[in-house]
Amino acid sequence: MVFSILSTFHIKSQMVLSPSGYVSVKVDLSNEGVPRYSISYKNKSVIQPSSLGFVLKDGNNFNNGFEITNAETSSVDEFWNPVWGEVKTIRNHYNELKISLRQTTTQRLLTLVFRVFDDGVGFRYEIPRQPAINHFIIEKEETKFNFGKDHTAFWIPGDYNSNEYFYYKTKLSEIDASVGHTITEISAKKLFDNNAVQTPLLLKSDDGIYINLHEAALVNYSAMNLILDKNSFSFTSHLVPDAIHNAAYLQAPATTPWRTIILSDKAADLLSSKTILNLNEPSKINDISWIKPQKMIGIWWEMHVGKSSWDKASSKHGATTANTKRYIDFAAKHGFNGILVEGWNEGWEDWFGTWKEDVFDFVTPYPDYDINYLSNYALEKGVKLIMHHETSSSVTNYERWMEKAYHFMKKHGMEAVKTGYVGYIIPRGEWHDGQWMVNHYNRVLEKTAEYKIMIDAHEPVRPTGLHRTWPNFLTCEAARGNEFNAWSQGNPPEHETILPFTRLMGGPMDYTPGIFKIKMNHYNPTSTFQVHTTLAKQLALYVTMYSPLQMAADLIENYEARPDAFQFIKDVPVDWDDTKYITAEPGDYVVVARKEKGKENWFVGAITDEETRTLQFSLDFLNKEEKYIMTMYRDADDAHWKAKPEVYVIENFVVTASTILKLKMAPGGGTAISIKPATIEDTELYKKYKVK
Amino acid sequence: MVFSILSTFHIKSQMVLSPSGYVSVKVDLSNEGVPRYSISYKNKSVIQPSSLGFVLKDGNNFNNGFEITNAETSSVDEFWNPVWGEVKTIRNHYNELKISLRQTTTQRLLTLVFRVFDDGVGFRYEIPRQPAINHFIIEKEETKFNFGKDHTAFWIPGDYNSNEYFYYKTKLSEIDASVGHTITEISAKKLFDNNAVQTPLLLKSDDGIYINLHEAALVNYSAMNLILDKNSFSFTSHLVPDAIHNAAYLQAPATTPWRTIILSDKAADLLSSKTILNLNEPSKINDISWIKPQKMIGIWWEMHVGKSSWDKASSKHGATTANTKRYIDFAAKHGFNGILVEGWNEGWEDWFGTWKEDVFDFVTPYPDYDINYLSNYALEKGVKLIMHHETSSSVTNYERWMEKAYHFMKKHGMEAVKTGYVGYIIPRGEWHDGQWMVNHYNRVLEKTAEYKIMIDAHEPVRPTGLHRTWPNFLTCEAARGNEFNAWSQGNPPEHETILPFTRLMGGPMDYTPGIFKIKMNHYNPTSTFQVHTTLAKQLALYVTMYSPLQMAADLIENYEARPDAFQFIKDVPVDWDDTKYITAEPGDYVVVARKEKGKENWFVGAITDEETRTLQFSLDFLNKEEKYIMTMYRDADDAHWKAKPEVYVIENFVVTASTILKLKMAPGGGTAISIKPATIEDTELYKKYKVK
Repeated sequence: MVFSILSTFHIKSQMVLSPSGYVSVKVDLSNEGVPRYSISYKNKSVIQPSSLGFVLKDGNNFNNGFEITNAETSSVDEFWNPVWGEVKTIRNHYNELKISLRQTTTQRLLTLVFRVFDDGVGFRYEIPRQPAINHFIIEKEETKFNFGKDHTAFWIPGDYNSNEYFYYKTKLSEIDASVGHTITEISAKKLFDNNAVQTPLLLKSDDGIYINLHEAALVNYSAMNLILDKNSFSFTSHLVPDAIHNAAYLQAPATTPWRTIILSDKAADLLSSKTILNLNEPSKINDISWIKPQKMIGIWWEMHVGKSSWDKASSKHGATTANTKRYIDFAAKHGFNGILVEGWNEGWEDWFGTWKEDVFDFVTPYPDYDINYLSNYALEKGVKLIMHHETSSSVTNYERWMEKAYHFMKKHGMEAVKTGYVGYIIPRGEWHDGQWMVNHYNRVLEKTAEYKIMIDAHEPVRPTGLHRTWPNFLTCEAARGNEFNAWSQGNPPEHETILPFTRLMGGPMDYTPGIFKIKMNHYNPTSTFQVHTTLAKQLALYVTMYSPLQMAADLIENYEARPDAFQFIKDVPVDWDDTKYITAEPGDYVVVARKEKGKENWFVGAITDEETRTLQFSLDFLNKEEKYIMTMYRDADDAHWKAKPEVYVIENFVVTASTILKLKMAPGGGTAISIKPATIEDTELYKKYKVK
Repeated sequence: MVFSILSTFHIKSQMVLSPSGYVSVKVDLSNEGVPRYSISYKNKSVIQPSSLGFVLKDGNNFNNGFEITNAETSSVDEFWNPVWGEVKTIRNHYNELKISLRQTTTQRLLTLVFRVFDDGVGFRYEIPRQPAINHFIIEKEETKFNFGKDHTAFWIPGDYNSNEYFYYKTKLSEIDASVGHTITEISAKKLFDNNAVQTPLLLKSDDGIYINLHEAALVNYSAMNLILDKNSFSFTSHLVPDAIHNAAYLQAPATTPWRTIILSDKAADLLSSKTILNLNEPSKINDISWIKPQKMIGIWWEMHVGKSSWDKASSKHGATTANTKRYIDFAAKHGFNGILVEGWNEGWEDWFGTWKEDVFDFVTPYPDYDINYLSNYALEKGVKLIMHHETSSSVTNYERWMEKAYHFMKKHGMEAVKTGYVGYIIPRGEWHDGQWMVNHYNRVLEKTAEYKIMIDAHEPVRPTGLHRTWPNFLTCEAARGNEFNAWSQGNPPEHETILPFTRLMGGPMDYTPGIFKIKMNHYNPTSTFQVHTTLAKQLALYVTMYSPLQMAADLIENYEARPDAFQFIKDVPVDWDDTKYITAEPGDYVVVARKEKGKENWFVGAITDEETRTLQFSLDFLNKEEKYIMTMYRDADDAHWKAKPEVYVIENFVVTASTILKLKMAPGGGTAISIKPATIEDTELYKKYKVK
């Protein structure tokens, strides 16, 4: 790190550029001593002067009357290797500006830190150790993001509890979070302001700049929502409060999460940004040998489609010894590592919607679930059961049981747990996304790391890149997953083309793709519910929707009925040496190519929204010396997510780095492709790919 | 149990009498179907018709529109032996009336159960298992206690958080809980209504009936405060709310705590009542061999007087290895079983008043406290260290550490823990006396029982007889203890004459008597603080203030300076075969005689308020065949709590069952007496007691 002290007194404003100069940040003080920042990208103003600061609970404003006492710049350019990820090596390259402020009347100190990358900015507040502040309570963080223009936004309603919404694409001036009230299938939502939206938020300016607003390293703080002022098109941060309406309890020295603004004039490039990861702390886990990206199947979708149930009283209990054995056999036969079993434990008769504190103990199996037999049987077969801890959001209860539960898991050879937070939180009055729960989620990461347990969290706060720090945090839900297609209006076909630009900017998602039986009337003749994609798109999601833990979510019998298509799910890896976002437009389409970890194989996922779409692109990322055999899983010509979703074609071709591919996707469709170095037999058997 | 079904339809009202007929309860329905009860004592009306019922959160009132569907009476007369207590055997003798109600419009069922003893009434609500109610939230319990007369009351302000007030004696019409705001030495109080008071509440009618209002078996419910209507002199129950203003979360079948009304026309007899204990469930602990009433000393008062401190940063850390060793030696020499050590663990630099969640971990000693050495040393000396768990009211944190902390205790040979709940509760928004905390205190009782650990809880909800169910619950604070005398306006001389009629009705108190150095200017020349009693009264408190765990609270050096007075503290037992409340008047005086467990020794404690007082009574409780040697520790003739508190006289006399004792107590004074079967030498050495 190289740094220089710019000056020490009477500083009026400071400017810092990204390494290549694309991004510039200017920081100054208003006449009232209010700190402000503004951001430009390629000489276009992106964020106009926006004020910074806090309102503290003690009644002293902490947002004006400041003077600048110091300003320093420094630079970092380094490379690091994630434990798992989309690429093998990540470059962390930024220029930093650190501004030290003193509030004249109170002598309180505040530091602003801006890290400026070529694809965006992260900034945070630091409250240094000082005589004037020790413990303090933040009533409001008043960070502004003043866009000044009526951008197009891809947004979900601001909510303290849930992020399981589909996205709305409107002008900023048209944002109306009250639409959240119409989404009745979310069991515990808390809407609070009709002008509020959540992050990650995607904006697109009329002059073609894509802007992602989010945060990095959410630790010991509340999640940030954003409230729009429609007069100025300026957002103000709104922290999720606690039971008594405070935003955060801190002790100096303290830092806030990074507020992140990722920028690009090419949508696909936004998806490659590693800035949020770079702003997180390095891994706190030294021995990483037990962290294993993997695929799983599970006793799960059968409950969502109503074939079985979590509880036993219903007399169609899914998690029986016999059924689990069937899944173990299937996993072992087809090379899946994990078997998730939900509904294995006592309590499901009375778990939902009652705000009951003592529901589950996480160590008591139902009598028809022989956990000792099954864990031995899984061991024999070389596979692993995956534990399920539905907390029913009774978090005080879960915290009492956590260590016993982890001990119980390890005793039964389980190395991964899916946690769940359905319903309203206990401690009552706390919200899913408030500081207390954020600390809980992070405590679970730390505690499971201690036990060498991998995590897949459902219904947590949305991720902020903490999987860099806790690589046992394989994946999480924190958005509207595939499950909604089983029992609600579902997710519109564009949903999966927006998620990579929004939710996935913070980290991997357990979207549970791979549904082959698209229409729910297969299970219940009167049902009108369905997955809003073609079958081929379900395959493509394994590539477009990055996660080191992926589920093959459908029922065994549905995979056994279509072994050819199932082959792609068996082949597709979950860890990568390289990733190329080829082309993408939020709400329309995404095409990505990824190179398998430690191998020469590539996989391509291409998806479209409700429109049929033909996309053409080069395979120039392939090794130029090599011939490859490509297997393409595409929509049949007459496929359509609604009219005819399950028709697909599988074709094999020989391809090279000079091949130009042309993919035609059905409405709601997609294409999944595997590309492997060709054998001589392959080149004889299959013809060369040519654009038709 | 004998029972009879009274009738099943069109019941208008029911009456039930206590076994001897002193107490009668009448229950009926108003024209609007509101259930009501009234109580008479010896043919005088005590409680006029008072309505019963709830407001539920679902908007359906549960307090009118009822019909009586059934009424049953039954009787119980049984004897049981407490694990420890004031008497060896307790009689449980009552008639019960059980009224089944149905709310016509909702078909909801409610049962009222009245148990009528000769010294009072307990009644509770039962919500049976039924189709119309499963989970439900109580917004308000609206139980009335309609006295209709302007009784004299001994009260402390209604408060969700603290009961560390001294008592106010006023007419009901003069109650004004706003006086609570003047008690600035309580660190976390929550006053909520100027007409609110706490239970146990003592009333005295103009026609000479003493009435104690409280509750028994507070389990899975919020503590009850009472709000007075000054027009009718009627109280309405007010449950402590949770963070979001609900009173209790229940699931049918459910029962509320018993609402108790203890009655007597002789004040001293009120103190003998075992009705609250009888209304609690029998012991849940089978093996009771490890539960040991005991006396302790400790590193504690020295912090209160400013000689040392809990924290280490102050550089006058009390809990050092050397100081603890000194206490171990003293305990072993003088026959004390336990040594409480506060400030032994990391965290005290930053524990108070900051609402910080992660303060203590309960397993990390300060580096100058060698716990391994000290626990071995205590073992060698045949004494036990007593653990201290100050939670700083960060209860979520304590619950995360509890089991590790108990394991740590047992590993170090400790069998008892003093818990503490100073400050505002985390989960933030919860109160000390709300349902969530009530469940916590009870969870601690259950969990410590599992570990065979005895409990002394400080700053918990006030007790309700649960020590019958959990006899490891030796004692608790839950009132204004002796410590307030060290650093505040303290406790007025009458304080200890009121506590037995109020706070102690629910269970033993760790009052920490035994202060010999009465005036704090001994430690700090400018201090005006002092204990508001004479030294002799401090001795008498060991008898008047019942607790199976009693502290000799003063410093070693103060005991060593007065070995003659100290002898009484060494002699006085903490467990009893019999107890006789001889005479008492709340706010004025209390005289009690107790017979040592398994021995023929008796101990008498007599205390007065700020008035000098001479009391005469017979020792007719002694064995008539026996001669005894009596050692009397009395105030010197010129003693006075303020002017001359530390002067006392110790005299020995021969006494028999026919002796009439005449005790003269100084203002704020008292007398402590031990009476043991006399040896022949005694009878030769000492003269016979005669009233002067």
